[in-house]
Amino acid sequence: MKRALLVLSAMLLLAPMLAVADEGMWLFNGLPRELLKQRYGFEPSDEWASHLMKSSVRFNVGGSGSFISSTGLVLTNHHVGSDTLAKLSTPERNIMEAGYLARTPAEELKAPDMELNQLVQIQDVTDQVKAAVTSEMTPEQAVAARRAVIAKIEKSALDTTGLKSTVTTLYGGGRYHLYQYRKYTDVRLVWAPETAIAFFGGDADNFEYPRFCLDACIFRVYENDKPANIEHFLRWSASGPAEKDVVFVSGHPGRTSRILTMDALKYQRDVAQPAGLTNLRRMEIVLQQYGLRGKENARRAREDLFGVQNSRKARLGMLAGLQDPQVMAEKQAAETELLKAIAANPELQPLAQAWKSIAATTTKRTELLKKGVSVNSQLYGIALQLVQMAEEDRKPSEERLPEFADAGRESLLQQLYSEAPIYADLDQVLLADSISKTLEQRGGDDELCLQILNNKGPAERAAELIRGTKLADVAFRKELAAGGLQAIEKSDDPLIQLARIINPESRRIRAITEELDEQDRQAYASVAEARFAVLGTSVYPDATFTLRLAFGPVVGYEQDGAQIPAWTTLGGAFEHEKQHVGQTDYTLPKSWKAAQSRLNGSTPFNFVSTADIIGGNSGSPVVNRNGELVGLIFDGNIQSLSGNYVYTEKQSRSVSVHSSALREALQVVYGADQLVRELGK
Amino acid sequence: MKRALLVLSAMLLLAPMLAVADEGMWLFNGLPRELLKQRYGFEPSDEWASHLMKSSVRFNVGGSGSFISSTGLVLTNHHVGSDTLAKLSTPERNIMEAGYLARTPAEELKAPDMELNQLVQIQDVTDQVKAAVTSEMTPEQAVAARRAVIAKIEKSALDTTGLKSTVTTLYGGGRYHLYQYRKYTDVRLVWAPETAIAFFGGDADNFEYPRFCLDACIFRVYENDKPANIEHFLRWSASGPAEKDVVFVSGHPGRTSRILTMDALKYQRDVAQPAGLTNLRRMEIVLQQYGLRGKENARRAREDLFGVQNSRKARLGMLAGLQDPQVMAEKQAAETELLKAIAANPELQPLAQAWKSIAATTTKRTELLKKGVSVNSQLYGIALQLVQMAEEDRKPSEERLPEFADAGRESLLQQLYSEAPIYADLDQVLLADSISKTLEQRGGDDELCLQILNNKGPAERAAELIRGTKLADVAFRKELAAGGLQAIEKSDDPLIQLARIINPESRRIRAITEELDEQDRQAYASVAEARFAVLGTSVYPDATFTLRLAFGPVVGYEQDGAQIPAWTTLGGAFEHEKQHVGQTDYTLPKSWKAAQSRLNGSTPFNFVSTADIIGGNSGSPVVNRNGELVGLIFDGNIQSLSGNYVYTEKQSRSVSVHSSALREALQVVYGADQLVRELGK
Repeated sequence: MKRALLVLSAMLLLAPMLAVADEGMWLFNGLPRELLKQRYGFEPSDEWASHLMKSSVRFNVGGSGSFISSTGLVLTNHHVGSDTLAKLSTPERNIMEAGYLARTPAEELKAPDMELNQLVQIQDVTDQVKAAVTSEMTPEQAVAARRAVIAKIEKSALDTTGLKSTVTTLYGGGRYHLYQYRKYTDVRLVWAPETAIAFFGGDADNFEYPRFCLDACIFRVYENDKPANIEHFLRWSASGPAEKDVVFVSGHPGRTSRILTMDALKYQRDVAQPAGLTNLRRMEIVLQQYGLRGKENARRAREDLFGVQNSRKARLGMLAGLQDPQVMAEKQAAETELLKAIAANPELQPLAQAWKSIAATTTKRTELLKKGVSVNSQLYGIALQLVQMAEEDRKPSEERLPEFADAGRESLLQQLYSEAPIYADLDQVLLADSISKTLEQRGGDDELCLQILNNKGPAERAAELIRGTKLADVAFRKELAAGGLQAIEKSDDPLIQLARIINPESRRIRAITEELDEQDRQAYASVAEARFAVLGTSVYPDATFTLRLAFGPVVGYEQDGAQIPAWTTLGGAFEHEKQHVGQTDYTLPKSWKAAQSRLNGSTPFNFVSTADIIGGNSGSPVVNRNGELVGLIFDGNIQSLSGNYVYTEKQSRSVSVHSSALREALQVVYGADQLVRELGK
Repeated sequence: MKRALLVLSAMLLLAPMLAVADEGMWLFNGLPRELLKQRYGFEPSDEWASHLMKSSVRFNVGGSGSFISSTGLVLTNHHVGSDTLAKLSTPERNIMEAGYLARTPAEELKAPDMELNQLVQIQDVTDQVKAAVTSEMTPEQAVAARRAVIAKIEKSALDTTGLKSTVTTLYGGGRYHLYQYRKYTDVRLVWAPETAIAFFGGDADNFEYPRFCLDACIFRVYENDKPANIEHFLRWSASGPAEKDVVFVSGHPGRTSRILTMDALKYQRDVAQPAGLTNLRRMEIVLQQYGLRGKENARRAREDLFGVQNSRKARLGMLAGLQDPQVMAEKQAAETELLKAIAANPELQPLAQAWKSIAATTTKRTELLKKGVSVNSQLYGIALQLVQMAEEDRKPSEERLPEFADAGRESLLQQLYSEAPIYADLDQVLLADSISKTLEQRGGDDELCLQILNNKGPAERAAELIRGTKLADVAFRKELAAGGLQAIEKSDDPLIQLARIINPESRRIRAITEELDEQDRQAYASVAEARFAVLGTSVYPDATFTLRLAFGPVVGYEQDGAQIPAWTTLGGAFEHEKQHVGQTDYTLPKSWKAAQSRLNGSTPFNFVSTADIIGGNSGSPVVNRNGELVGLIFDGNIQSLSGNYVYTEKQSRSVSVHSSALREALQVVYGADQLVRELGK
């Protein structure tokens, strides 16, 4: 296969970079300059791109954001910040419910375990990574070899630059780029609105449009206990975008699966997505039931519940795409054409093997899904991490499981030793349910299940485990970690003991999964090369939670015969409330009602554009041609969800908070004059 | 095997009738007289039993009730009546929310499709049924033969007596009894309280104790457009039960599975219950999502949602029992002992084969579950019924699917031609989801699925089907039915056409299921005989939604070290509200707040007893030794749920509304003086 690949690489250089419509989550080191010029007469300068890249940040909880002042202010979504907002909340100071505004730096609240990454450098290391893996290797050997070379590259990059260094797999395995980030771990909350306006309309309105949400909050990064001095930050557009203006989204889309072969898509349709949804629905009911027991319970479960509901709705949208015969027929036609072209070209023919390899891994993945171990509890998760860390730390860095390698140690420990609250009662409910689920998966007579249960029912066993563990105490975790493997083996903590029982099976399943992933990486590398060679277009890789640029005009769309306008207004929010009287999540906060008469009702509130986004883009800045901030991505409409597999421009839209609404609300509703003065300065 | 069975039957007659503790849902033609005498010094007379039997009624929606006046008043639970309460509700007259009181007969509201059955006669027809099925028959032949003999018995009984006649399979197939019922189909609503008090505490408090619920409502049966003249009805106890008083429950427990072999229990634990729960959780989310779209949506979905949540919580409790290794060990020990005794007795040895037969059917059931067709929509259900009725009606009655046989035709048509509202938008959502589910089960490339989809995604296809069908119109249904098979085959109604596409597969799956059921019936007949022979005790059969007597004292229990009292009080309801301020479903209705000062707060509200009940018992009257009404079953506590598989007296409790609370509320809160005067008269 090697010869063919070399040829393909050469062909790739010649392939014209034409993309269809506004499709694409483009690499910052591979922007579609020709396309932008043709379609929008826009030629981004290197400075424009570099400034936007460095003004963008990634949140470790899985979202995006941007620097919006030289004084370290960071803008993101409320629902990206909410993990921290919940951790900073107590029954007495319920930030999620009441919002927060720090009127002085002293009032800014330090997040217990937030990490922000600013991308400063990208380097292609494909040759180095590919050279380490040869075709003679077994999947197991290939996993180890690839892991080792990646760990080495990352470690050496870290040592040289001091930057957080991560090798990213692109095109499903076709390319490897080294991403280097500046890391900010002292992050403090400056402002957050009430959930009632950040998530106005709740689960019912989520992924729908029109929306009326101020899904925003503002943090500030610190260095050496002082507001960080930020060179690259976004200035504020005076008016925001006009209709049909092209806008640019710089963010971190999490994962798309557009390269998938038909076999892999059918595995997603018939196995993976249904199984994922079953788990999410289960978790949703468990969290709801826990929340029903009291107001404080509801507060504790809220953040998890939102996440689960959000994922459930997103996955349902993805599955709807896969279950639509017309979508699948389109995908099938494209694949058939590609395979025909491969068959017609003797140099490409060896690549066809990749499709068979992928079909084979989906079969194995289906089998693997049937007998898992899924213990879902924060405290158990800590226990398993401590057990595995003790084992891994006895190996050289490049042989360890990647999360325990030296390059990522700081980020690992920030999480492991976080002082964020863990609610034992909630954790116990989740543990009980997941033990029960493991029994269902493996059968109640399964030897491992019997060991987990220790002759008690799941609920009783979970109660005993949570009652007995000391892992809620961070000092205890540190002490255990310091004692290494010996301390772990001697520990009588029941969750550590449980983790030791389950660990071998967890590792076994993980190893099989990683071998399948490796097989797929090799296969998709071939698929990618084939696509480059034959199609010569669509050269952006699937999303990988790394920085991408998307773009498109601000335009409405037609739905069920009606024209959906490109934006909503602040006044519309009050109308929306009236139309949903008495319904959950449709009550505007008091602050908004008090400010209603002073608000300019015609201010644009939320707007849509065709920019190609997906989960992970939440909090992405939206900028105009001048690189000025005009909005803040917070959602996609329901039609955008099948974008995981295929982009369509007709109805699929990304949804943003308009910059004018944000500024107006900060001033008029929240009286955050000092904060507004800082913006873009 | 035949010889052994004869011997066993003889032995059975000699077996002492001793039951453990207060376990048992006893047949009215097989009351545990010796046990009652020994344990409670109570010897029920034939009149006592017959009067109680004839005062009891069964609701076709799946609940119990009792006559409480000579003027046709019937008492049941609000949650049994709620199917009808919802059907009688409109956005303007929301009976579910606001309750209802008919102050004159003219104000009594006729239920659109309610049927009540009063058991008047039981006859053992075991010999006749068993004689029709021989050991040489294939399962398919046996299904047909048994169906034919049962249809014949039922038809002849109907023709002779005019009574609704049903042959009931008892002991999983060990006995067959003919039950004959007087039928009431003109049922009118007299009184219902607000859901806020009927289901105070909502899903959170459901299956929990202590409770504070007035889960009651009152209907009246009519004959010839006049209140029916009722001979057997319950008189009202002056004070209700004292602590430790033995009470008796006369009701229709739906289904228990205590006879199950270990293989069958493991199938329940590892396959059936998890699959059932997955479906329920899915439906719960779908109904919640639909309800979130608006208040009217919430009202429309409420009744289904309650049913689903109730089942979900009940099944979770059952599964908890099965997943408890100690429960299973107990069951295993009992089975091992039984099998040992069988092995030791040459006459019994052939019966051991039954265990293997049951193991084999569970394997086949597991396979069958993987590839079903589950289309969940009222309108689709009507379509399929019309298609199948047209086919079945071409056969003689005894060869038809049982629901289409002559004996049950009236009840069938009452449902099929019900004018109760069907909400097309809700039905569409359910249809879309169930098409999607069918795709998940069978795979998106399945030929039947592709036919169902007709080249559209599930949501789009469901919209098209519901938009196109005329089946919401009862006259259209009647017209179609009158046209017979020819009309069906010519119909261009899209749901009829869909039903014709799916019908062969539905029938195929049903036929396989029925053959497995038949195999199990024959096997459990052997298991039952073996148990009779070896154990000689526990001679009540598993629940079959036929009338049973349960009993036990009114006593509290210990939980987590605390003593839970035997009853709560009306005053406690107001306390309970205070403890849950701001939580959903914990707000007492205005009527109760207005009446608070006039209510006697020390009146007992809900109470528990050890009586052995299960789903279907809802609405059962609770009587004292004198046969006087002292309460109304409405729930079991969480510990009672594993009672599906095994009864335990320690913590398992049935929960009732106290008769005094009911009377007090009717008078003081609802001012239903006229109604109160009628009670027990």
